Amino acid sequence: MDLQGDDLTAAVVASFGDSPSDRYREVMSALVRHLHAFAREVDLTEDEYFTAIDFLTRTGQISTGTRQEFVLLADVLGLSMLTVGLGNRTPPGATQSTVFGPFFVEGSPEVQLGGDISNGAPGQPCLVSGRVLNTKGEPIPQALVETWQADEDGFYDVQKELDGPQNRAHLTTDADGNYRFWAVRPVAYPIPDDGPVGELLRAGGRGPMRPAHIHFMVTAPGYSRLITHVFAAGDEYLDTDAVFGVKHSLIADFAEHPAGTEAPDGSTPEQPYYTVDYDLVLATTEEAQQ
Amino acid sequence: MDLQGDDLTAAVVASFGDSPSDRYREVMSALVRHLHAFAREVDLTEDEYFTAIDFLTRTGQISTGTRQEFVLLADVLGLSMLTVGLGNRTPPGATQSTVFGPFFVEGSPEVQLGGDISNGAPGQPCLVSGRVLNTKGEPIPQALVETWQADEDGFYDVQKELDGPQNRAHLTTDADGNYRFWAVRPVAYPIPDDGPVGELLRAGGRGPMRPAHIHFMVTAPGYSRLITHVFAAGDEYLDTDAVFGVKHSLIADFAEHPAGTEAPDGSTPEQPYYTVDYDLVLATTEEAQQ
Ligand SMILES: [Fe+2]
Ligand SMILES: [Fe+2]
Repeated sequence: MDLQGDDLTAAVVASFGDSPSDRYREVMSALVRHLHAFAREVDLTEDEYFTAIDFLTRTGQISTGTRQEFVLLADVLGLSMLTVGLGNRTPPGATQSTVFGPFFVEGSPEVQLGGDISNGAPGQPCLVSGRVLNTKGEPIPQALVETWQADEDGFYDVQKELDGPQNRAHLTTDADGNYRFWAVRPVAYPIPDDGPVGELLRAGGRGPMRPAHIHFMVTAPGYSRLITHVFAAGDEYLDTDAVFGVKHSLIADFAEHPAGTEAPDGSTPEQPYYTVDYDLVLATTEEAQQ
Repeated sequence: MDLQGDDLTAAVVASFGDSPSDRYREVMSALVRHLHAFAREVDLTEDEYFTAIDFLTRTGQISTGTRQEFVLLADVLGLSMLTVGLGNRTPPGATQSTVFGPFFVEGSPEVQLGGDISNGAPGQPCLVSGRVLNTKGEPIPQALVETWQADEDGFYDVQKELDGPQNRAHLTTDADGNYRFWAVRPVAYPIPDDGPVGELLRAGGRGPMRPAHIHFMVTAPGYSRLITHVFAAGDEYLDTDAVFGVKHSLIADFAEHPAGTEAPDGSTPEQPYYTVDYDLVLATTEEAQQ
């Protein structure tokens, strides 16, 4: 009774003492101590407490199967990138990870190697290709490659009212580890700022822009799952990504080609198009744990 | 680019540097630093990150106009009591504050002095009375007293499917500062544990019980708003309140009386009943700021 200050913090930490999980006790103890230290440092007012309650509630309530506002919140607070850095002991030579983002959707359509996933999305055609390799440079056949990206207007399919997916698909690599598909060239876009996270950015005097990128999630048996982006070289927002996700090693050239020239897949597009080639290198499960 | 570790934390803090509000910069800086320190201390895994995202999302989505799961979360993590302690410089003689709780509802019915607010709720009748005073012991007439409490089954009205409010009302004090109403004797109850907070408690090996109490929120012009409970003496959960809210000074006797005896308000109930008398002492706005 009459708990306050350090005694209160100690009592809350102690209340988790009967948890059957050592890890749960460890995490909750740290969470309570850091949460209390935060409130104490800023001398949190009751008004601010209620503002936070309301903010968090609305962040949950605006989230749907296709919009994840809490991921977005973690992104703009740098927690996503921090977790990526803590969790991925990327061995030398493996592709680095970056944020998952709020726009992944389970159950994307399958596309055959070389197919077109744009499905009518506005933008200039872009042939995306590369290989999925291990750190010895050997191809990984039958790797599952999930990809998703925004269109020329800066929107993901799930932000628009559509009948089907656009610029979102999964495919498996061929015997030589190749992946290849047509989409549209992604552009820099603002993260959704019509919700609580947008309020947070505006109150913070922060911009919402992310540099142009393609999302990848790659899985293969025996390998650590890779969640990453390939960013477009030269983008004006590479140094000011709203979610702090850019890594030099993830930047690739999106080469522009005139109409009527032959693309690497043997086709001859009748309009100007782009190509980007990027190898995705997976660490083995063992390598990732070291 | 390539932000990680302390550089990442510094970049996120710096991103709020253009906020027009000094206070916002201060709060967000501290929030980011403590959030990152937490994640680093526990070496947060990606699985735990996604578990937290899912937990917070569901906490928002289960909340409604009559159930506030984020308040409940702040309660069980001790953040509510910590904020109460930080925000209320209760001067000597003023009634202490405790948690607001998740069950307040705007727009409760008005009750006249001495009226019955139970509205058919199960439980033994209980006459709740006292005066609203200032720290000099002078009555505060026309103070607004909001009250809400659970019934004999441990439920608030909003947890049941009802046509109207039970054990929930507001009234104004008379010229002598008196408040008085009939309700039912509150009992110890479990906080709602059918949602995310219930999962958290079970994973933590914690119980959900709160000792019996009556909620009060009292406002009067020139005085600091008082949010508190009156707890029932002798309750077995006074030392293990799930939300850490008990203060010695807020414990009062709920006296039991046989049927057919005259109550302090002159009535003679035909069944056994309880009485509790507790003066609510408000600090002036000036006193509360000192
Ligand atoms: Fe994205
Ligand atoms: Fe309560």
